[in-house]
Order: sequence, then C-alpha cells, then structure tokens
Amino acid sequence: MNRKMVYFLIGRILLLLGGLLALPLAVSLYYWDGGQIPFLITMVLCLGLGWLLCRVFRTENQVIFAKEGFFVTALAWLSVSALGALPFVISGSIPSFIDAFFETVSGFTTTGASILTDVEALSHSMLFWRSFTHWIGGMGVLVLMVAVMPNLSGRTIHVLRAEMPGPTMGKLSPKLRDTAKILYTLYIAMTLLELVLLVAGGMPLFDSAIHTFGTAGTGGFGMKADSVGSYSPYLQWVIAVFMMLFGVNFNLYFLLIMRRVRSAFRSEELWTYVFIVLAATGLICWDITPLFDHFSDAIRHAFFQVTTISSTTGFSTVNFDQWPTLSRMILVILMFIGACAGSTAGGLKVSRVVLLYKTTRREIRHLLHPRSVTSIRFEGKPVDSTTLISIGTYFALYIGLFAAFWFVVSFQPGFDGASNFTAVAACYNNIGPGLNLVGPALSYASYTPILKLVLAMAMLFGRLEIYPMLISLSPSTWIKK
Amino acid sequence: MNRKMVYFLIGRILLLLGGLLALPLAVSLYYWDGGQIPFLITMVLCLGLGWLLCRVFRTENQVIFAKEGFFVTALAWLSVSALGALPFVISGSIPSFIDAFFETVSGFTTTGASILTDVEALSHSMLFWRSFTHWIGGMGVLVLMVAVMPNLSGRTIHVLRAEMPGPTMGKLSPKLRDTAKILYTLYIAMTLLELVLLVAGGMPLFDSAIHTFGTAGTGGFGMKADSVGSYSPYLQWVIAVFMMLFGVNFNLYFLLIMRRVRSAFRSEELWTYVFIVLAATGLICWDITPLFDHFSDAIRHAFFQVTTISSTTGFSTVNFDQWPTLSRMILVILMFIGACAGSTAGGLKVSRVVLLYKTTRREIRHLLHPRSVTSIRFEGKPVDSTTLISIGTYFALYIGLFAAFWFVVSFQPGFDGASNFTAVAACYNNIGPGLNLVGPALSYASYTPILKLVLAMAMLFGRLEIYPMLISLSPSTWIKK
Repeated sequence: MNRKMVYFLIGRILLLLGGLLALPLAVSLYYWDGGQIPFLITMVLCLGLGWLLCRVFRTENQVIFAKEGFFVTALAWLSVSALGALPFVISGSIPSFIDAFFETVSGFTTTGASILTDVEALSHSMLFWRSFTHWIGGMGVLVLMVAVMPNLSGRTIHVLRAEMPGPTMGKLSPKLRDTAKILYTLYIAMTLLELVLLVAGGMPLFDSAIHTFGTAGTGGFGMKADSVGSYSPYLQWVIAVFMMLFGVNFNLYFLLIMRRVRSAFRSEELWTYVFIVLAATGLICWDITPLFDHFSDAIRHAFFQVTTISSTTGFSTVNFDQWPTLSRMILVILMFIGACAGSTAGGLKVSRVVLLYKTTRREIRHLLHPRSVTSIRFEGKPVDSTTLISIGTYFALYIGLFAAFWFVVSFQPGFDGASNFTAVAACYNNIGPGLNLVGPALSYASYTPILKLVLAMAMLFGRLEIYPMLISLSPSTWIKK
Repeated sequence: MNRKMVYFLIGRILLLLGGLLALPLAVSLYYWDGGQIPFLITMVLCLGLGWLLCRVFRTENQVIFAKEGFFVTALAWLSVSALGALPFVISGSIPSFIDAFFETVSGFTTTGASILTDVEALSHSMLFWRSFTHWIGGMGVLVLMVAVMPNLSGRTIHVLRAEMPGPTMGKLSPKLRDTAKILYTLYIAMTLLELVLLVAGGMPLFDSAIHTFGTAGTGGFGMKADSVGSYSPYLQWVIAVFMMLFGVNFNLYFLLIMRRVRSAFRSEELWTYVFIVLAATGLICWDITPLFDHFSDAIRHAFFQVTTISSTTGFSTVNFDQWPTLSRMILVILMFIGACAGSTAGGLKVSRVVLLYKTTRREIRHLLHPRSVTSIRFEGKPVDSTTLISIGTYFALYIGLFAAFWFVVSFQPGFDGASNFTAVAACYNNIGPGLNLVGPALSYASYTPILKLVLAMAMLFGRLEIYPMLISLSPSTWIKK
C-alpha cells in the first residue's frame, strides 16, 4: 500500500478542514460568544498538522489503488471528526471528548443524533459549526477536496468512489475534478435557494442558515428543543420540500441544467422515491388525522415526518413517537429504505431496493418457468449479474452489520428493545432520532461512553456504505507484507 | 395450470392423512381417553374427501410443471393443517378452531409454538397426535406421499423440490421415488434409535415416543409444563445430541451408509454447523456458569439450549429467558441461522450463511483488486452466478418478509417489542419459544385470533421456504388465462 500518499492526502484534508473552520470563527467573532479561542486553536492545529503531514509524506509516487482509496476515506472521516470535536471540548460546551466526538461524527455523517439534552444552551458559533458539519459531510469531504485543491493528479477516482453513496457511480464529466465541481456548484445553488426562501418567510438569517445546512446535508441538527416545531407552516413546508429535493440523485439536477429534461424525468429511482414518499404520507395522514384539528395540519405533519425520515434528515415538527403504531412502523420501514443514490441521504437507497425487488420478481418467474431467460433492466439499461451479486452481498452485509451493532448496543443497561433497535437504525441509516428513549424529544446522552463510540462507528459504516470502514479495520490493511 | 392434477394430488394427500390418523386412533383406543370418536370422525372425513377428490379429478394428463408443484405444496400443507386440527376441536381439547389450526400448523411445520397454557391437561391421544404431526412434517408430507404411494408417474420432482429445504436439492438416486424412500428409511431408523436410547434411560415408552417425534422433526412440542427440564441429565443429553443429529443434511447419512465416509466428512456445511454449535455452547457456558452449582450443569444446559435453538426444535431444560443478555442474544442470532439444508430443521440454513459470507469476502477482494477473477467454491464445487444471485434474492426476500410479519404482529395490544420480534422469529424460523411474553415458560395464547393466523402463515412461509406460499398467494395463480 502506498502509505505515503495516504498520509499526504490526510494532510490535505486537514488543511481543508482548517480553512473551513474560518467560517465558524467568523461567526464567533461576529457574535463575540466565546467561540473565538476554541476555533482559533483548532484551526491552527489542523493547519499545522496538515502542513506537517503534507511535508513529511510528500512523494513522487502518487499512484493509489482501490485499497488506498477506501483507507483514505475511512481515515479522513475519522480525523475530521476527531479534530472537529475539539471546539466543543475546548469551549466547554461538550466537556467530554467522547460526547463531542459522537456529536461531530453525527454531524459529518449527516445523522443528526445528539447527546445534548439542552441544545438551546449552545452558543451561536457552536450551533453554526455543528450544523455546518452536516453541510460539509452531505456532499462529502473528499469530493470537496478534489473540487477545490489543485495538483491532485492520479487516481482520485478511487477516493471519490469510496465516498459517494449508491451501487454505481455516475460520472458527470470525463474529468473527475469537473464532476466534483459540478456537484458542489449544484449543492451551493440549492442551498442558497433554500436560504433565500426561508429568510423570505420571516426566519432570521442565522436560523435560516442552521436549518438550510441541516436540510442540504440531510442531517437534522436543529437549534431548538422542539426542532422546527415552532416555525410557521410555510417554513415547515419549505424545509419539507427541500428535504425531499436533497434526497434526489444530483445527477438528475445536472441533466436538468443540461436541458436533458426527458432523460431526467425518465428516472425509475426518482419515481419510485416519489411514490414511496406520497404513499407513506397518505397512509400516515389517514392514520393521524384524528389527532389534529385541521386536515391541513395532519397533511403537513405527515409529509414533513415522511420526508425527514426517508431523506434521513431527522428534523421534526411534532413528537412522532406519540403517533399510533401504524404510523411509527411506517417510519421505521422508511428508515431502512432511505432516499436516492447519489444524493446526500443515507439508508439502503431506493435504487438498491428497486433492484432487489426486480431480482426477486425474476427469481419467481425463473422458478415457474425454469427455461425462461429474462434480463433485468434499470434506468433503461440491462444490469449484469456481477452488479446483482454485489447488491445481494451489500444487502446481506448491511443486515449482518445491523444485527451486530444491535447486538452490542443491547448491552446498554435500562433501555428497552425498541429504543436500542431504533437507536441503531437511526444511527446506521444516518437519520438521527429513533423511538421511545431516543425519540425526537430525547437524546442519546444516557448511552454509556463505549456504546456512544459504537453508535458513532455505526454512523460511519452507514455514511461510507460499509466497505471503507470494513477494509480499514481488516488486519490485512495494517500488516505490512 | 393443470388444476385437475393439483386437486387429484390433494386427494392423495388426504387419503394419506386419513391413513396416518390410524395411529393416534390406536393410541386413543389403548388408553380409552375419549379421543376415539374425534379421531374416527376426522379419519372418515379425510378418507371420504380424499376419495372424492381423486375420483372427480382423475385425469389422463398427469404432467405438472413447477407452478403446479409450488401450488400443490402450499395447498397440501394448508389442507392437512386444517383437517388435522379437527380432533382437537371435536374433542374439546382446543375448542377454538383458530387455536387448533395454529397448534396444528405449528406441529406440521415443526415449529412447536403452542397456544396451550396447560399442556399437561391434554389426553394421551391428543398429545400423541400433536407430536406425531412434527414427525410427519419434519421429513415432509409430500415426500412421504411420493415414498409410499404407487402410480405417481410424471414430474413429481417439482413437488419434492418445493417441499425440501435448502438452496439446492440433492438427488440420492436417479429415481425420485427411491430418494424419498431412502430419506424415510434413514429417518425411521434414527427415530427408532433415539426411542430405544430414551427407553433404556428409564423414560416411559409414551414419553419417549413424544420426545422422539419432537426431536426427529425438530419440532419441540413436549408434554410437560417445564418441557424436558424434569428428566434426568442422561435423557437430556440424548435429546440434545439427537437434536443436533437431526439438524444435519440427510444426504450425509446416506453417504455414510454407502461407506463414502470421506466425502461425508468433507462437508463444509457440516463442519461450519458443528463449529457454530460448539462456539455458541462455549460462549453461553462461560456466561451462565455462575448461575449453576456444578459446571456439568452449565455445560449441559448451554449445549441443550444451543442445539434446541440452532436445530430449530424448541425443547428447553431451563427457562433461558432468564439468562443474561449475552446468552439470550446469541440464541436470537442462532434462531436465524438454523441448521443444515436437507435436514428437518428451519431457519436460513448454514449453507446459505456460508455462501453469503464467501460472496462478501469475494466482493471485498474484488473491490480491492478490480481485475481479480475468483470463483466461489462450496462443498468442493464451483458455484455459478445464478445460484449466488438466487441466494442473495432469497436472503432479501427472507428479511423483507420477516419485516412484514413483524410489522403486522406489532399491532398486538400490550406486547413489548422484544416479545413480538422473537415471536415472529420463532414462528418464521420454526423454532417455537421466543423471549419475554412468548418465552419457554409461556405460550402464544394471548395473541388475537387474526395475529394467530398471521403467525401460522409465518410458520408455513418459513417451513416451505417462502416461494410455494408466495406463488400460491399471487393473483396470477388464481386468474384463469
């Protein structure tokens, strides 16, 4: 393995993180809220460490392969989370490093699960940084690095492929750097659009920024105890619609901009996603109408909670943990499906679910007519058997790891089965709130420190789609041959 | 679809069931315990109905295809369960038909989940019939029909394939009827061996028969409130060892008899199964040693509970629901793995788990070295991609259906999440007892009638490995083209 190049790239990532920390630093200077020194220290540390790594591990041999790609990805996410946690610790907002690490991993992985019991006590700059990690993690740390840093010759594709979600990676441009730039341009444009719509609806600029970051990254960190429950219906609708939009494959937006409207709207994954959201909204709306005075409230809350869970964001307008069983079970199922591949959302992804369904249908047809030969098509193209095996394997691994995390987390004393199950589901699928003791009105504060680390690992496994973490943890990565 | 032949075969099955009812009838005559009339009525009904079906639907065209095979299998299991429930209803032992149907499905599918709150109140003949259904269902109703009934020309392979568990079907002989006969001969020989060993250990003949039926079919219906907890350690060891033996692929016993000892002992599935049982026993033994005075008790109880769960039998020597979390979680994981394909056990089957593991390993290797080409070998033979896709699909379907059953069962009022989860796991994997409210010391009596039917469906889906039930329930089977 080309270790030098790995550490060199980590150095680059830390330089980038140092640069990004300028934003919360500016916020803390503006509000003069005590965050200045913590952010400055962390920034200097990141820049110094990054510079040192880039200097020590500068190498002529910049060639990396798939293994380095996975390893860099896992290591990069672990390092930015560990260093990104420091402002919370230094400022005393979250005194325990493990708690701060959990919160920062939750931020970067766009999970939104919090150990804070009183989020309203956080200072402006800390709130800003916490939500800004969502925005960075949503589209990806490494994608950003490729987009903004020059002189990264060689096989950065391995790095991008390891970080971007979904069964296959769409190339928007023959040059990877252009792909990364296009993605971030779209991302910034949509972020600004939501920001403007929220400010226009009367939300203060700071609040708008916080909620836009959370929506764009499909993260879910808010700034109030009742999440977005106290904002006006208009603002809730804007956030709900944008949560849904950020759950769509970004390639489709690119197609729209290229005026290839027909091919964008021909996407099977898009329509399945829209169908799932509308069907779930309809069912839940029917289930919860008796709870509200006006039907318009029921439909807004149903749509908001469906989009928040299926886009794996995790905001909430009401405490859905108090809803009837049917609605809660629908939300748990949505947790696992997630949104589209190539979006900022987590979960299994709609495209995988569609392909698993199609394979099952073909399997049954084949059982009935053993000599029939039918190929599976997705998005208008035939899917080869290697991809089908990969998807089956990913699903098995996904379920197996879910069971393993659940097994470990069930050692938490005093928690019931449903709390632990939904806690793991909410972390692993990067959603945030679960049910019962980890419901939207409560936090992850009571988990033991070790289980907080385990849940943070679950978030990283979920966000990076298992393989980067698994490969980095396997002994063969560490033993020199 | 060749409907005539389907109903003709169902007629045959009912004739067979009528014949098998002679055994509990004989038991009721011997003990004169009030079962005579109920069994006689049911027997006459089965023979009459079977004769009628065979006469009305006699057809020249005996050709059936895969679809008919799946349909016959599902219909046969539903009919024998519905008719087999009648003695319980007529005698008043289980007055509600739905309860009796649940109990009989649980018997034939070798689940062993019971709605009885006081099993010791049952008469001898009812106890006998209840456990005898395990023995019949273990090796299969249709396999028995093929073995004993002459003049079944044509494609009975479709019927056998639909009923026999595992990813692929081993042919022991070019002639299917011979395969079925060999399987039943081995089954009867092993059943007699266990019976002799139990009687030799001082267990009364009647009790021995009950427990042998439960072990052989890997069912788990007992005759005492504490299952086999009050029998001597010797008897518990005999039952534990036989539970493990009945979880082994019967093809291996055939190989042993054919003196192909080396090929029998080269089976990967066998050794993985043995490893899983021993590793789980070791871990649980370490976990529960403090609960017992003697280490020999801890090891016996650990081994018994591991073999009972992994062979999906469901007997118990202690109330393992009171064991520490680690032990209970290990047992829950074993519930899903099950034992070997081609045995009388349920669950996902060890061979599928091994193949999923191997595919995952290859997938990771392929991610690291995209140009590497490695084939997956199992039991010394390469596995083609069609089989790998099938296994992935089966797993996805298995998990999806589990979630669906769990979803429906969670509507049960007043039950906690762990009870419902393990109730579905125990029924779907044909084990019997779960944890909490459906633990080994309790019963399924409190579920609502509709949910009892849902759980009975879960047992049938699990026993017949999903496809026969799914295909029979799909509209295309019912709509004439």
